[in-house]
Amino acid sequence: MIKLVYCITRRHGMTPEEFSRYWREVHGPIGRRIPGLRRLVQSHPAPHPADMSPPFDGMAELWFDDLAGLEAARRSPKWRASSADEAHFIDATRTALFLTEEHEILPQK
Amino acid sequence: MIKLVYCITRRHGMTPEEFSRYWREVHGPIGRRIPGLRRLVQSHPAPHPADMSPPFDGMAELWFDDLAGLEAARRSPKWRASSADEAHFIDATRTALFLTEEHEILPQK
Repeated sequence: MIKLVYCITRRHGMTPEEFSRYWREVHGPIGRRIPGLRRLVQSHPAPHPADMSPPFDGMAELWFDDLAGLEAARRSPKWRASSADEAHFIDATRTALFLTEEHEILPQK
Repeated sequence: MIKLVYCITRRHGMTPEEFSRYWREVHGPIGRRIPGLRRLVQSHPAPHPADMSPPFDGMAELWFDDLAGLEAARRSPKWRASSADEAHFIDATRTALFLTEEHEILPQK
C-alpha cells in the first residue's frame, strides 16, 4: 500500500475548535467516500509541551493499494468534492502533501 | 494514546537512497529503544505523480500512552541517543514536529 500524507493549517479566522470540528464532522464523511481508499486517519493537535510549537494544525493520512489506485481516485467526482470542501477549513498556501510507503519499525505493543 | 509526528528532510549531500537506508537500518533500531514507545512507523517517499513535488523526505510517527509518557521518554538517555543520531541524516532546519491525537475516519478495509 501507499500512503498520502497531508499536513494542514487551518483557514484564517477559524478557531482551533471550529477547525477540528469541521474537519472531523463535515469533511471526514466527505473524504471517506473517495473510491479506492483503504484507510483514512485524521491526526488532530494534542496539547503540546511548553517547548514545542506546532508547525501544522493537523495531518491526514490516506492509504491506497498503489499509485494506480491513487490516480484513479484523483480523477473521481468524490475526490473533487473532497478537494472543493477543503477551502472551508484549510489554508491551501500552508499545507504540505507527499506520498509515502510505511515501514513499521516497532509494531504496536 | 498520543502520536508525535516528525516531517523530516535529508541532510545536504546525502542521496535519497543513502538517507532512506540510514534512517531505516541505523536510526530505526536506535529509535525503537526509546522507553514508553508504543509504536514507531517510518513513512519513506514513494514515487510521486508528475504534478506532485514532495515538501519533505519522510515522516516518522511515534506513539506514547500520554503526554506524561512522552515527557518521561524525552528525559531518557535513549531519547538523547536517538536525537544525537539525527544529525547523521536529517537537516534539523527543515523539519516539522508536532503532537497529535488520531481519529480513524475510515478503518482499514
